[in-house]
Amino acid sequence: MTLESHTNATMAFDAVASGMVENVPFDELFIGQTAERAQRLTLTDVQAFAAVSGDTNPAHLDSTYAAQTRFHDIVAHGMWTGALISAVLGTQLPGLGTIYLGQNLRFSRPVRLGDTVTVRVTVRELHAEKRRVVLDCQAVNQQGEAVVSGDALVIAPEHKLRRPPVALPRLQLDLADATV
Amino acid sequence: MTLESHTNATMAFDAVASGMVENVPFDELFIGQTAERAQRLTLTDVQAFAAVSGDTNPAHLDSTYAAQTRFHDIVAHGMWTGALISAVLGTQLPGLGTIYLGQNLRFSRPVRLGDTVTVRVTVRELHAEKRRVVLDCQAVNQQGEAVVSGDALVIAPEHKLRRPPVALPRLQLDLADATV
Repeated sequence: MTLESHTNATMAFDAVASGMVENVPFDELFIGQTAERAQRLTLTDVQAFAAVSGDTNPAHLDSTYAAQTRFHDIVAHGMWTGALISAVLGTQLPGLGTIYLGQNLRFSRPVRLGDTVTVRVTVRELHAEKRRVVLDCQAVNQQGEAVVSGDALVIAPEHKLRRPPVALPRLQLDLADATV
Repeated sequence: MTLESHTNATMAFDAVASGMVENVPFDELFIGQTAERAQRLTLTDVQAFAAVSGDTNPAHLDSTYAAQTRFHDIVAHGMWTGALISAVLGTQLPGLGTIYLGQNLRFSRPVRLGDTVTVRVTVRELHAEKRRVVLDCQAVNQQGEAVVSGDALVIAPEHKLRRPPVALPRLQLDLADATV
């Protein structure tokens, strides 16, 4: 564990302990600073992403079809991992008040049901003039294999913000008409 | 309307009329070929995307907080529009059997509640050797202003596929604990 990730872990612990979330304004950012989040892919995740995006490609929803594809089983939408990356940027580093300007994504391996994807973002460039920040974005599976990589360009928040967390809306899926 | 988009519209009509969806394999792709999809952003869309991505940034979920931001109201997650782009690629052009290799996204304007986003993808490069296709991706709002732009790299399907559509899973949101 690097000093940077230790620092981040401590900050996250403080925020959780106080029941508050806080951002990392531009002046607190440094090269190499990281934040990460892990999530295990369930069939519900895939179905919910299909509903939200309207992407009903059967590679994600129909196990019989998916069995005949090059991946031999249901895989996540590539942009599901993209959404996890954006979530780390918007809620952890830099977090509250971040303005998203751009994102490049390379999809290098499928994410399968039961895979645990760990998304890590790392500060790579800091441009003080307009508070622009470039972050390296890596998503790996439980074997440590890259599944998605890329970089993000954001405007970091100017001021420190602390506030109570927003509860995650809970989703219920109605699959009565679906063919899974 | 260009000849290309007319051709696409006719193909889409045929597929709808037969109750089937079909893809556009590499050999049927041509430079300038387009497909598009429009969606009006509702608060439910934003809440559902938050639930799916875990991105609980209050800019998307808390109207009181959002009123104090530079956008003055709730805006969509940038990656929501990214997900619409990937849906057009995965379900329309090239559609079934497409392998997603990469996506660049520039977020140029916020998408607000009630905005109608039209996503259009256009074939820009065809590389026969490995069936690689580069598509220009544009998302505009109802004023025709660019909200997201970029390009996608995919492997187009080799063979024509036709199959019944997959029903979209329906989502129900439980906001009992949310602070919207």
